[in-house]
Amino acid sequence: MATWMIVLFVSMSGSLSLSEREPEYFSPRSCKELMLRYKTNEDGLYYLTTASGVVYQTYCDMTTAGGGWTLVASVHENNMYGKCTTGDRWSSQQGNSPNVPEGDGSWSNTVTFGTAEAATSDDFKNPGYYDITAKDVAVWHVPNNEQVNRWKLTSFLRYHTDTQFLNSYKGNLYNLFKQFPVKYNIGSCPDNHGPSIPVVYDVGDATSNHNLFGPNPRARSKPGFITFRPINTERAAMAICLGVKPTDCDTEHSCIGGGGYFPEGSPRQCGDFPAFDWNGYGTNTGWSASKQVTEAAVLIFYR
Amino acid sequence: MATWMIVLFVSMSGSLSLSEREPEYFSPRSCKELMLRYKTNEDGLYYLTTASGVVYQTYCDMTTAGGGWTLVASVHENNMYGKCTTGDRWSSQQGNSPNVPEGDGSWSNTVTFGTAEAATSDDFKNPGYYDITAKDVAVWHVPNNEQVNRWKLTSFLRYHTDTQFLNSYKGNLYNLFKQFPVKYNIGSCPDNHGPSIPVVYDVGDATSNHNLFGPNPRARSKPGFITFRPINTERAAMAICLGVKPTDCDTEHSCIGGGGYFPEGSPRQCGDFPAFDWNGYGTNTGWSASKQVTEAAVLIFYR
Amino acid sequence: MATWMIVLFVSMSGSLSLSEREPEYFSPRSCKELMLRYKTNEDGLYYLTTASGVVYQTYCDMTTAGGGWTLVASVHENNMYGKCTTGDRWSSQQGNSPNVPEGDGSWSNTVTFGTAEAATSDDFKNPGYYDITAKDVAVWHVPNNEQVNRWKLTSFLRYHTDTQFLNSYKGNLYNLFKQFPVKYNIGSCPDNHGPSIPVVYDVGDATSNHNLFGPNPRARSKPGFITFRPINTERAAMAICLGVKPTDCDTEHSCIGGGGYFPEGSPRQCGDFPAFDWNGYGTNTGWSASKQVTEAAVLIFYR
Repeated sequence: MATWMIVLFVSMSGSLSLSEREPEYFSPRSCKELMLRYKTNEDGLYYLTTASGVVYQTYCDMTTAGGGWTLVASVHENNMYGKCTTGDRWSSQQGNSPNVPEGDGSWSNTVTFGTAEAATSDDFKNPGYYDITAKDVAVWHVPNNEQVNRWKLTSFLRYHTDTQFLNSYKGNLYNLFKQFPVKYNIGSCPDNHGPSIPVVYDVGDATSNHNLFGPNPRARSKPGFITFRPINTERAAMAICLGVKPTDCDTEHSCIGGGGYFPEGSPRQCGDFPAFDWNGYGTNTGWSASKQVTEAAVLIFYR
Repeated sequence: MATWMIVLFVSMSGSLSLSEREPEYFSPRSCKELMLRYKTNEDGLYYLTTASGVVYQTYCDMTTAGGGWTLVASVHENNMYGKCTTGDRWSSQQGNSPNVPEGDGSWSNTVTFGTAEAATSDDFKNPGYYDITAKDVAVWHVPNNEQVNRWKLTSFLRYHTDTQFLNSYKGNLYNLFKQFPVKYNIGSCPDNHGPSIPVVYDVGDATSNHNLFGPNPRARSKPGFITFRPINTERAAMAICLGVKPTDCDTEHSCIGGGGYFPEGSPRQCGDFPAFDWNGYGTNTGWSASKQVTEAAVLIFYR
Repeated sequence: MATWMIVLFVSMSGSLSLSEREPEYFSPRSCKELMLRYKTNEDGLYYLTTASGVVYQTYCDMTTAGGGWTLVASVHENNMYGKCTTGDRWSSQQGNSPNVPEGDGSWSNTVTFGTAEAATSDDFKNPGYYDITAKDVAVWHVPNNEQVNRWKLTSFLRYHTDTQFLNSYKGNLYNLFKQFPVKYNIGSCPDNHGPSIPVVYDVGDATSNHNLFGPNPRARSKPGFITFRPINTERAAMAICLGVKPTDCDTEHSCIGGGGYFPEGSPRQCGDFPAFDWNGYGTNTGWSASKQVTEAAVLIFYR
């Protein structure tokens, strides 16, 4: 006995003739499209389809600030003590090395990994990351290993842009990071930081955001922004500063992701959450981040 | 009669008669449901669907002891010489370290990996592991790299519980291991072992089971049980003892999976098959397991 | 109005009109079948279905030399400086070691990884690799990180066999490599090389092919062939020589993939592109390959 899997796009009026209908009609490409076309207004897991026909499941936030937010990625620090080792997919799994200046390259390639349901237990990147044309970005901080139906409840910080800044960067982070490569030695600080965009808080506020990081990075950044492709003193590149705009060059204590090489204290800064443990794990003293933010996944949405 | 799987995107208000039915009717959540509702009675690969809508393919054993067994996981030792390195997804891929006491955490998170068809060539964990509510567990030992249609023929040991013990642990191993974390230093031996459940043999017997392990572990365990979350002398935690109940604290020679730290002889005991090679690879002398069990994947089923 | 994804199991004798059709109609098993049955003649991404019901998306070349070519694998060197480390799925991710003579074993097992859309950014192996029964093989060299719709344009070397040689090896590389294991110490050079098959060039020619490799490997090989399972002086096994037939035993400079142990200069030769950097990265001098071939993914097709 054979079992077959058949994927059909079926017209609403019941004809099973594939060829007579536009497949796009039945295959929402983003949560926003799903919301607008189908009047879907419940948060939860849905299937989306890319322009090239890839079908994937992800989480839609259909209620925050008008809804229509698509989860496209999560950055999960699986081991703060692992320095660019297995699981550091948003920086490098190749060790800290100038020979691999872009590390795994995940910020600007089409490699995907993980699942929506495990997005707080492992790194997640779905095809929406490069397929969706969006205007704004939202970020959620959700404690590790939380179940999907508790994400919204347990998130302790959530913010989003509302400036439609992605219009200037070809519609998504994949393209933004083509323009601003997350690559060691691509530029210097402060001249070559990427854009800082103001954010609106949905959970938490600028102060609670700022307090997630130690007193030193707090004194060297302003909350209320999301910053892309910061560069530190030693010319290491990171991807995203978490609700802050750096005002100096020690960006490795509040920004995540990265290329494959962080010269300072090698290899101690290399990883998805680079130097969050510089003065001890979760101490929230000196340069170290709080335990709360260290043990939470960073969920990235588009709209 | 062949079974077809069809994935449809159907409007709730559409005229397709299909859409008028309960979606659950069309999406078996376990092999047991598939058997009971559809009278499916052939072993093989089928598609199942989780409560959250994830569709996955896995193997159903529809004949053993009444059938209805769903393959939810396999533990495959890809490199007995790798000590918590890449591929040790049921212990740790982060090296042997007290800093990562739960290792990869696969026993109690929703991360999935592998495929049914490669379950004897690589680690496998599907969403059924956390999605299915079950009563009993079965274990098969199948030589590495066997094709699906030869698993039943080539398995040299198979056993299952029939006490419905999972009723006491929220219906699956995901929840059982939430209650009994596979984590270094969570408790001590022998006081904090998890449950030992008697098993019925489907292939092999208590003696052939026992003889898969060296004379030393044999003298320190009783066959005819499956034991969860044993702890060894040095407070390392493992996940499952293979058909045995330990009577002392050297559990690392017949139990599999683990947290991320095994203190004794560091890093020699860390891995999916922890110290099966303590007195040489596959020697079946002293503390070492046989080559047969060392080179076989452990397939885990629910019913 | 909500959109639901519904999974149906439909009996062949059920009342749905769908079930009255031949299942093959809905599930092409290869691009060749898709072309012949559906008259599909455009290059691009399509869904295929294996005998066991696995559905996967891959790229079909429907135009070269009659069309009908299915992409089944890509070999991507993610880090030329990583010597059998994470990402070396076509050789070994376990370090250079005689204890793991077959490395990850990907050439002759059913493990799959990657996606079609990321085939030039990461290793890719789909179920077609072992499921399709084919006659010939094609190879494309495409620069890393190229988008699918630019592969054909940017490929700088493409060739295919037309001898139907796979008829002699059970129809695919999975079976060929069962017969010729990619395993350290399985044989010696030159007696135990696997088959060399002549190729026809679709892009480039024998001279441009040869010039991708340094002067030393060029002097020790003949272009115009694809060679399987070469063995080097030190008894390391590789999988595929890229458009060449070795005439001596230094095969590690123009052949890719491998078992888990390369004795010479350990660990410097171990990796998906073994010793392409022996005299420097991309120098194209001495034993080293050109930068062009070093930074291009090798796409493998069946027909």
